[in-house]
Parts: sequence; C-alpha cells; structure tokens
Amino acid sequence: MNVNNKSYRTIWLHPDNNQIVQIIDQRKLPFDFSIVDLTDVDRVAIAIKEMYVRGAGLIGATAGFGMYLAAMKADRSTFKEDLEKAADVLNNTRPTAVNLKWAIDQQLELINDCHDLDVCIEKMRQKAIEIANNDADMCRQIGLHGLKIIKEISELKNGKTVNILTHCNAGWLAFVDFGSATSPIYQAHDQGIDLHVWVDETRPRNQGARLTAWELGQHGVKHTVIPDNAGGHLMQHGLVDMVITGADRVTRTGDTANKIGTYLKALAAADNNIPFYVAFPSSTFDWSLTDGVSQIPIEQRDDREVKWMLGLKDGQEHEFLIMPEDSPAANYGFDVTPSWLITGLITERGICPPTSLEIKALFADKYK
Amino acid sequence: MNVNNKSYRTIWLHPDNNQIVQIIDQRKLPFDFSIVDLTDVDRVAIAIKEMYVRGAGLIGATAGFGMYLAAMKADRSTFKEDLEKAADVLNNTRPTAVNLKWAIDQQLELINDCHDLDVCIEKMRQKAIEIANNDADMCRQIGLHGLKIIKEISELKNGKTVNILTHCNAGWLAFVDFGSATSPIYQAHDQGIDLHVWVDETRPRNQGARLTAWELGQHGVKHTVIPDNAGGHLMQHGLVDMVITGADRVTRTGDTANKIGTYLKALAAADNNIPFYVAFPSSTFDWSLTDGVSQIPIEQRDDREVKWMLGLKDGQEHEFLIMPEDSPAANYGFDVTPSWLITGLITERGICPPTSLEIKALFADKYK
Repeated sequence: MNVNNKSYRTIWLHPDNNQIVQIIDQRKLPFDFSIVDLTDVDRVAIAIKEMYVRGAGLIGATAGFGMYLAAMKADRSTFKEDLEKAADVLNNTRPTAVNLKWAIDQQLELINDCHDLDVCIEKMRQKAIEIANNDADMCRQIGLHGLKIIKEISELKNGKTVNILTHCNAGWLAFVDFGSATSPIYQAHDQGIDLHVWVDETRPRNQGARLTAWELGQHGVKHTVIPDNAGGHLMQHGLVDMVITGADRVTRTGDTANKIGTYLKALAAADNNIPFYVAFPSSTFDWSLTDGVSQIPIEQRDDREVKWMLGLKDGQEHEFLIMPEDSPAANYGFDVTPSWLITGLITERGICPPTSLEIKALFADKYK
Repeated sequence: MNVNNKSYRTIWLHPDNNQIVQIIDQRKLPFDFSIVDLTDVDRVAIAIKEMYVRGAGLIGATAGFGMYLAAMKADRSTFKEDLEKAADVLNNTRPTAVNLKWAIDQQLELINDCHDLDVCIEKMRQKAIEIANNDADMCRQIGLHGLKIIKEISELKNGKTVNILTHCNAGWLAFVDFGSATSPIYQAHDQGIDLHVWVDETRPRNQGARLTAWELGQHGVKHTVIPDNAGGHLMQHGLVDMVITGADRVTRTGDTANKIGTYLKALAAADNNIPFYVAFPSSTFDWSLTDGVSQIPIEQRDDREVKWMLGLKDGQEHEFLIMPEDSPAANYGFDVTPSWLITGLITERGICPPTSLEIKALFADKYK
C-alpha cells in the first residue's frame, strides 16, 4: 500500500542487489518510517525476534527470505548443515508462529532435492518470492470477497459514508500486502466507495493507534482513532455500519481468537444489529479445535506493557509510567469471540457463516 | 479512607485555623500526594475549574466551603453583593455540575435570612461542614447496602476471594469519603471479607489506573489494573463475581450514563450471567428522563486527551504523543447502559431493580 505516495510491500528484494532483503522497522512506526537492509540469516532472526516485523503472514515471508539469504552465504562444502542450522535459528525466534515453520520447511524441501547449488539457491530465491506473493494474493482475495459486503452497505446507504470499526492491526503491515481486516477496506477505498474507519487504539500495545491509523492515513483512507471504550456508544447511535477484525486462531466451529477486547465489540455489534465480520487467511484455522473459549489458551504477557507506555516527547520515543508503580497489573493477549456473535468469516475462498456445516462446505479438503 | 496509614477525607477545615480549607491536589495523583490550602473563593474556583477536585459529591462540598470562605473575606458593608458575586464565580467554574449550584444555593439561602453577620458566617461554616458530612454519610449508606451483596457472594464462595470489576473512579476521591462504587468494597474490606478488585484503567483519562488503583492500594485493598479490553475475557473465564460502577446520570426508568466503556462491561456481564450493579447517591437521578440512549446528551471532549497521554519519566510527569499526530481522534465522555443490562441500583435508600415501578416505590416522594 502507499507510504508517502509510493507503493510498498512490507518485505521485498532490493531492486538492484538480490543479496539484500528490505523490510520496514515497524517498531519505529508511526513516528519514523525506516527501511532496514537484511543481508544474512542472523539479521533476519533479529528482525523477527525483536519485532521489526510481526504478523503471521509477514513472519512467514521473512523466514522464507531468511533461508534464501542463508543459502547465498552458506559454505558450499557444508551447505546442507549450514541451512539446517539457519532453519534452527529462525525456528527459535518465535516458536509459536505457525507460518514461520511452514515457510522454513518449504525451503528445506528444496534443499533435499538439490544437486546443483546455484540452481538450488535460485530456486530458493523464487520460493521466497512465491511465499510473499502468495501471502499478498491471499489477502487480495480476502479483500475482493469483503468488498462485496462494503459495496452492498454503501448501496443501501445511497453512497453515504460507510463507517467501519476495526480493532488492533490486521493491516498490510501484518502481512506482505493489503492485510486481512483492512483488505476489503483498501479495495473499497481504491474503487472510490466513500468510507470511514473507526480505529480502536487497542490497549495495551496500541497497535490500532500506532499502526492501523498510520497505514490508513498513508494510503489516504478517512479514519478516526478512538479509545477501546468508545465502540459501544458509537454503535448505539448508528455511527457504525459494520465491524471487521482479524483473527489469530479460528476453530472448526467458527469461534475466533483475536486481540483482547474483540469479544466486547462483538457483543456490542450483536446488541445493535451491526454485522460483525472476521477476516483471515484459511491457514488461521486450527482444525483440531471445537470450542474457542475452553480450548484456545490465552497468552499472559509482561505486565510492563500495561504499566508503562511508549510515546513521543521532544521528537524521541520514551517509555513512561502511567499508574502507581506498586499496583499489580494483568496483561491477557487475546480473547475469544464465540461464533454466535459473528456474522461471517471472510477467507481467501469466500465468505461463510461461522458454523461447522458452512466451514466444512467451503473447506471440504481440509475438514476431517 | 487511608493514605500512608492515616485517615483522610477529600476536603476538610484546617484543624487549627478555620480560615483555611484543605484539599488534595488530585491532578498530581498517583505520583504525588499533595495537600493544598484554600483561603479565598478565587482559589476555590481555580481548584474546581482546574480539577484539583472532581466528582459530583466533592465539587458540591468544595463549593459549600468556598461560599463560607467568601463570607469570611467579604466586606461587611457589601456583604450580600460580595456573596452573590462569589456565587457567580463558583457557578461558572463547571456549569454542568448539578451539585455545585445546589450547594451554592443552600449557602445563599442562609444569607437571605441573616441579620447578624457573625452568626451568619458561623451558620455558613456549619452548613459547609453539614454538606460534606451528608455526602460522606450518603456514601456510607450506599456502602452498607452494597456490602450485603458482597457478603452473600462471599458466603456462596465459602469465603474464597470475591472478584469485583469496576470502571473509572467512583471512589472516595470523587466524593467526600467512601465513594459510591467503592463504598461497598471498603465496607467489605474493613469487615475482613476476602476480596480483589479488577480496576479498568479507563482510557482516555485513566482515572481507573491513576485514581482507583491508588486509593485501593493506599487503603490496603487487593487489586489489579487491567486494560479496558480485558474484562470480557475475565468474565468468560469465571474470574469476575460482580461488577460495580458509579453513574453520572440515571433516568427514572433505570438507564444509567457513566464513563465511556461502562456499557461494554454491562454487555459482557449479561452474556456471562454476572451481576452488574450501579451505585450512586439519589441526587444522580434525573427525574425528567425516560430513555437514556436517546435523551442523555453525551459530551465530546478535546481529542488531545486521546492523542496525548500523561505519564511519569525520570520522576516528572509529561505529556506524550501516542499516535500519528495527523490522524483525527474522537473523545466521547460517557455512554449509556440500558436498564435491562443492570442487576440493581445501589442508593443511600437501598438497592432496587432498575425498573420504573421499583424506583418509584423507593423514591415515591421524588417520583412525579
């Protein structure tokens, strides 16, 4: 999507030097747009581990490029061993990221079939690009499906502004391009549909206020940042036409885990008859789970993220204390929105109601 | 309640000098506990306007003392005129605060009946103390009624910790003592009932994280600060036994306006069969209103409160920018919780279900 009126992805091969992979240092957003060169697997590992890049799709793509850089730098006499070591290094950066292992394994497979190293390295370059392209294309498909919903609402409103609420960042910054929850929004915006996005700031890490607001603003999408507390009031007063969020994990029954606070917005949407959609690539399904609330473990993170906050003062970012230092704080990462609160799941294959039957119909090949 | 193991109210006459009224500069909490002397009506006006003191009950009490200070400083030859001017100054500090005008009018009435100025000033001193005492007593009554509910839950749990969630600050800092939502909590704590409070941080002004956490901590009540997003998840997992919030305005039908985000917690409580109580002195009723969502106007505040945040760095408080400076933000002050989401209203006269019939039964003298 656009940044300073120029189109970007979140990861790309340097146009003049295919030994360099480039990413955006997302830790510095929204106050600084800084591009970082990755030239070996150790730097890629740091970029993943220290969250220069984040989001399932982007982590996978970054790992794919990491394996390619490792192959280029590997000693020819110990090529396989070097690549297996590189795979270990990358796999250990964020052990719970499913896409990470999946991308690394795809690259390792190529090595097993490899006889000519130059051919192999070239294949790995193409595979890294393919992984990134596939991620972007998947998000584009999600956008095209979701676009239909926004179009319908826009028509029902006779072209008056469609107000969409979103929580956290399921934007292009979390993928290679387009995003999941934001992809229908970008599609609709680019087609000239009049829309406006309510951006939940998303405490405690403020991914909405920092990342979603920034990416929508850079792409020229009308938006307003609101405290997480505000959505219910907006919905009571007809100021929200639909909600779209992303998902971190979805059960075979249509329950979705997403950033903490999503469930509260789903309750308010249901109470006010506002459609609530969850957008995600189908790799987010966990086909083994049947009940979200009881089966999806919710990560508890460092309470420092609640007690201290990042902000800009005199042109520099600092951490500052926002509550009594002696008071305890708790930091749950996600919550589960039960399927009955969800209007539809938007995937790359299409939109389906959140029921086992409908999910099975759309994903018969994966549903056991 | 206790601060550094010493009992305080939020406003009091200096023990050795009845020309001085003392308050806590609440703007500096939780990082600095600082007591301020008020010696004339202009300083009282500044203290109200600049929010050294806040909360309906405390604002009323402060205005009562302000009129008394004005009387002491008034020129005897222009006593009435001086006092009417003082009333104007105070009334203009926060024009929408109902208790403010009510307290000032009570003091003005005394002047109308006055022949001996010394007697009059003494009566005004007594009236100011009476207004403060009445506020504290009203809150104590709310606490005694609410205590019964906490006791019941504690007994049902065989004495295991009762987990109570609250939003914003309806604590003793907003009144003269005890608070509204916190009063049952302090009563239960002081009686040795094992309880723990989940404190919503309450963005954007963080009254929960700054004030409620501080006052509970100082009084020795177990508590944990959570982002506003977390309550739904806690309720889904049995970690909340009841919710108590305050109210800024209540309709004759039992709809309540309170700090933005209260409605979302009420929805989650209803979805998880958790009792949701609203505690307030009966002066909070607006007997003219029949429908909260359509009739209670919701104040929109400066967006600066959303975009910038107060926090401590190197021992000093600063404002920090927490989102793209160019992105718009919206700041709605309150939302309305419809009566059907509320289990009961806790007032100084007792607890009643939020229905016209039950409210009328308890407040027959006020209900027209």
